[in-house]
Amino acid sequence: MEKKMTPVIWKAVDFDGGFWKERQELNLNVTLNAEYEQLVKTGRLEALKQQWRPGQPGNPHHYWDSDVAKWIETAAYTLSYHADDKLEKKIDTIINTIEKAQFDDGYFNTYFTIVEPGKRWTNLHVMHELYCAGHLIEAAVAYFESTGKRKFLYIMIAYADYIDSVFGPEEDKIHGYPGHEEIELALVKLYRVTGEKRYLALSKYFIDERGKTPNFFEQEARQRNEDPDHSPIRESLNRNYLAEGPYALFQAHAPVCQQKTAEGHAVRAMYLYAAMADAGIETGDSSLLDACKVLWSNVTEKRMSITGGVGTFDEGERFTYDYNLPNEAVYNETCASIGLIFWAHRMLLATFDAKYADIIEQTLFNGVLSGVSLSGDRFFYSNPLAVSPGMYSNRIIRNPRLSPQRQSWFEVSCCPPNLARLVASLGGYFYSLGEKGIYIHLYGQNSSQMTFKGTKVGIRQHTEFPWDGKIRIELSLDSPLDFALSVRIPGWCSTPSASINGTSVSLAGIVKDGFAGFKRLWQSGDYIDLAFPMEPVLVEAHPRVRQNCGRAAIKRGPLVYCLEEVDNGDRLWDVSLSENTDFTSTFKKDLLGGIVTVKAKGKSRKIEDWDGTLYSSQRSDSYEREITAIPYFAWSNRNPGEMIVWLRKE
Amino acid sequence: MEKKMTPVIWKAVDFDGGFWKERQELNLNVTLNAEYEQLVKTGRLEALKQQWRPGQPGNPHHYWDSDVAKWIETAAYTLSYHADDKLEKKIDTIINTIEKAQFDDGYFNTYFTIVEPGKRWTNLHVMHELYCAGHLIEAAVAYFESTGKRKFLYIMIAYADYIDSVFGPEEDKIHGYPGHEEIELALVKLYRVTGEKRYLALSKYFIDERGKTPNFFEQEARQRNEDPDHSPIRESLNRNYLAEGPYALFQAHAPVCQQKTAEGHAVRAMYLYAAMADAGIETGDSSLLDACKVLWSNVTEKRMSITGGVGTFDEGERFTYDYNLPNEAVYNETCASIGLIFWAHRMLLATFDAKYADIIEQTLFNGVLSGVSLSGDRFFYSNPLAVSPGMYSNRIIRNPRLSPQRQSWFEVSCCPPNLARLVASLGGYFYSLGEKGIYIHLYGQNSSQMTFKGTKVGIRQHTEFPWDGKIRIELSLDSPLDFALSVRIPGWCSTPSASINGTSVSLAGIVKDGFAGFKRLWQSGDYIDLAFPMEPVLVEAHPRVRQNCGRAAIKRGPLVYCLEEVDNGDRLWDVSLSENTDFTSTFKKDLLGGIVTVKAKGKSRKIEDWDGTLYSSQRSDSYEREITAIPYFAWSNRNPGEMIVWLRKE
Repeated sequence: MEKKMTPVIWKAVDFDGGFWKERQELNLNVTLNAEYEQLVKTGRLEALKQQWRPGQPGNPHHYWDSDVAKWIETAAYTLSYHADDKLEKKIDTIINTIEKAQFDDGYFNTYFTIVEPGKRWTNLHVMHELYCAGHLIEAAVAYFESTGKRKFLYIMIAYADYIDSVFGPEEDKIHGYPGHEEIELALVKLYRVTGEKRYLALSKYFIDERGKTPNFFEQEARQRNEDPDHSPIRESLNRNYLAEGPYALFQAHAPVCQQKTAEGHAVRAMYLYAAMADAGIETGDSSLLDACKVLWSNVTEKRMSITGGVGTFDEGERFTYDYNLPNEAVYNETCASIGLIFWAHRMLLATFDAKYADIIEQTLFNGVLSGVSLSGDRFFYSNPLAVSPGMYSNRIIRNPRLSPQRQSWFEVSCCPPNLARLVASLGGYFYSLGEKGIYIHLYGQNSSQMTFKGTKVGIRQHTEFPWDGKIRIELSLDSPLDFALSVRIPGWCSTPSASINGTSVSLAGIVKDGFAGFKRLWQSGDYIDLAFPMEPVLVEAHPRVRQNCGRAAIKRGPLVYCLEEVDNGDRLWDVSLSENTDFTSTFKKDLLGGIVTVKAKGKSRKIEDWDGTLYSSQRSDSYEREITAIPYFAWSNRNPGEMIVWLRKE
Repeated sequence: MEKKMTPVIWKAVDFDGGFWKERQELNLNVTLNAEYEQLVKTGRLEALKQQWRPGQPGNPHHYWDSDVAKWIETAAYTLSYHADDKLEKKIDTIINTIEKAQFDDGYFNTYFTIVEPGKRWTNLHVMHELYCAGHLIEAAVAYFESTGKRKFLYIMIAYADYIDSVFGPEEDKIHGYPGHEEIELALVKLYRVTGEKRYLALSKYFIDERGKTPNFFEQEARQRNEDPDHSPIRESLNRNYLAEGPYALFQAHAPVCQQKTAEGHAVRAMYLYAAMADAGIETGDSSLLDACKVLWSNVTEKRMSITGGVGTFDEGERFTYDYNLPNEAVYNETCASIGLIFWAHRMLLATFDAKYADIIEQTLFNGVLSGVSLSGDRFFYSNPLAVSPGMYSNRIIRNPRLSPQRQSWFEVSCCPPNLARLVASLGGYFYSLGEKGIYIHLYGQNSSQMTFKGTKVGIRQHTEFPWDGKIRIELSLDSPLDFALSVRIPGWCSTPSASINGTSVSLAGIVKDGFAGFKRLWQSGDYIDLAFPMEPVLVEAHPRVRQNCGRAAIKRGPLVYCLEEVDNGDRLWDVSLSENTDFTSTFKKDLLGGIVTVKAKGKSRKIEDWDGTLYSSQRSDSYEREITAIPYFAWSNRNPGEMIVWLRKE
């Protein structure tokens, strides 16, 4: 068996048209600038200069460095396919600022330099110090990979070396780990780009140390002269009533390989599991990958919205319990879905199983893409699956993160730059190389270049995906080469078919773990035509999902659909569809940037029958109403109103 | 038209058998003692002695007096039908303690005497000072009416006189009103028992003053040298995001007659509306009754659970918006349903419309009675309409008041004694006298005595109600008397019938506003047989109630039914019934104290089909499952588990 796939780097994949070209251009032309302006406006950039002094307004927050880092990372990715001197200069200016503020020992953290100087590494539990370091390292790696420029990378190597001198198993080091996972992922990236094994070892140390007894966060609290059982942190955690104990919010309630269910803060959980997969891949420690598989089943079979949203509960932004998947009240943080993609990608590389790519696709097109407006400059933190009028008044909303209308920024603004860096680097999720061949994970118009067994291979996808399931894959090669081209057969497609150079080929017997392997002597000009018919279907949820009993969602291909009031009138929760509803799909190029709508005939109860009546044993008459569904990701880009994913099923 | 009904006092109605006899005996023998023990154990009784001093443990709370008062009121009612020297002595001891602690000016309040001395009347907004006074006055009136003993009444008259000297329109008085309504009701009771019109006028003053501009609570805050816009109270209110502004929590956002929707804290709202009805009845101010009718429509047509539960949202224990009636997450405080009965009773007396008695019955048998265990010593604060396993773990529950298992007491323990006083005085809701005759509002085995037009009339109900809809009403009279005996035709009954002395009588033409008026020369020994068939029916909610679309509840007569896991297994949310389900009703004398169960055949999806699958477009097979429903009020008296009222409807 092959050991792992090697992903084709983002910059080798060029979206030369189609769905993702549009998104990447919007990301580049609007999102990146809008976010930069927010970094300026909110003082995040200025704070890096570390001129702020106690008593002045604009107290830098402990997570600000990370927002800047994710912006740099995003910008870095874009430079590889869209040269921009001005943008590069902006980045270099920030890098120079960081360089100036970096301590001689390599340390760099705005908050602990100017807001709480002298408290370095005293509160890993909640202060995001290693988290910020992680994002800076990821940004530095991306900038180096994109531009070849080494200054930022060296700055962050110095910081990583310093961190490595502070944390680890040796007696004189701190035996701790971050409250918010992230640096684990960054250290593996730094290891891959530098080859320095200490970074991988430190990442694995943070993973292995997590959740050991006695709990590090308690020891750390005692060193701050706090009573860990009665600290403000602990009291807030106690109010959160975590069944697995207060440290489950940080996945620190048990050693990671003993964790069987996804617990606590969903973004942290996703980053941890992704880091566990990375460490498993790189060190060959199969116990980490085995633990990941158990957690994966729990998440994707019991704790995930149909959109790929994870983390149900807003207080603690966290997982709750199996099959608890509310629609209006669900949290589904955009960052958590992004984290799920990070994790799924690593599991895919480790296992060669297309089920992980199915989740990447499902999450990307639904729970992640809903996080940004079609205008590119407004963002969801939380991604509910239904919205009723009461959610627009402030009666229930306690938090802008829960607003059913996208916001231009948030006080804690992790999601907008996280989404931007994913979109900017999305090419990196499309292809991988195994020992025996090339794997295609995702579909979408693009042109890519890779080298397999010394031969340059170009792969071009011609497709209207995700609007249409026909994909032509054209190969160009330096010279003919015998290898397996493995294409993912999407889990959502029940009638896939394929042809090579115009001749139909049977998929029987060649599909393994969701990949159809076409092994032959490939020549330049060969092409595969894939057809993944996309008929709208009604999808039900597991009968234990009490919120969706008697309901079904419309899916078409990878896209989850929803109804909005602007297209359908109100009382969407009383629209019912029959089991055998006929659907009509139509591409509307002028609607919401160009989407396929799905129309059908449903029913609702006549409201006139109910005037002045709240409860009745009389049978209520129904009337037929035509419904128009749009892709979930495109909701909330017109007049605010009701929205619903899960419709009544007759 | 008659002006108003006069209720027959509780002590004239003797539950000599049947449903309410059992409840009153349990109330007397268990609940009353259990609550007394809690008053002792929690220090509430001891606190009345006012020996506590700052720095000592057991800080008396600002609402403690009211808990004691409601216990006295309950005990007082019971003495009228169950003489008990020991109990009477307990009450007298408390009265003596209150007498000793009363100030010379008449003032009595434990909290403001020993915890915050010198701050009398400085925070009507949140400190329950007038609320406690109200409950003490109600207790004193009840004790006087039950025993004829005047001491407590005189103590409270002195207090009321003092309050009257402090509040009112005169320039030297405080132009305020309580943050928690209650004294308004008490003052009307005191007026009725003393004939002193000042008490009625003061009650009406509190009502009329409420919600005027500038807001009294703000003025009061300024007098405490607080900035009303940035006080802790205000910040907590702002977090509650009331659409009608922060003072809507206290029904103080607009003058009461301008309030068109039920807003804010539900118990406060119910007490206010009841007080408005009282004042309307007693002063003839029809604008107050008109305002009540508008609010009544809003509550009962848009904001009330099928159980008579009101007040949806736990934060603020308050109303939210029209048709927002969740099942698991609903608050439905027991006290709010009790308050709804207080209000409905007054509306009934003012209007002669049986629709108000329908709500009394519906609320009493469902939302109120669910508040106490069948053992009599455990209580619900919140009354949800569905419970899933996650609610038993502490994952979601932030507050014992939200527990799906009854508790023996609460820190704020208004509900248990409130429920006890309602049950103890329930006879007072059964009959009224109008100018033209006698009205029967509620059904249940009892024997009652009243005087109409100088003639003593005895009415005896023989019935198994609420288990059976047959009621025989026997009359005994000193001498024959020509009058209308008006019996309520329950709104839930579609095929009522009646006979007099064995001869069938047509109801056609004699039913007005829900009362069938039998006018004749009544003689001793005459009897009416009423038959209100009780077939179980499926009830739907208004299509705007999004939480119950596609669902129906089982009702049988006045009782709402529910399914519990102990009878039905789990996944109750996936039980579906067809429109034409056949139901079987059976009285089970050994089950839950003797109840009628309702059985039917429903369906659920096969869970085995779903192993490892969270979402599927495959049609899921169903299997038939027999269901057993029990009355909602009897739930949570056996093994904890799932519970559901609203079932899927095929």
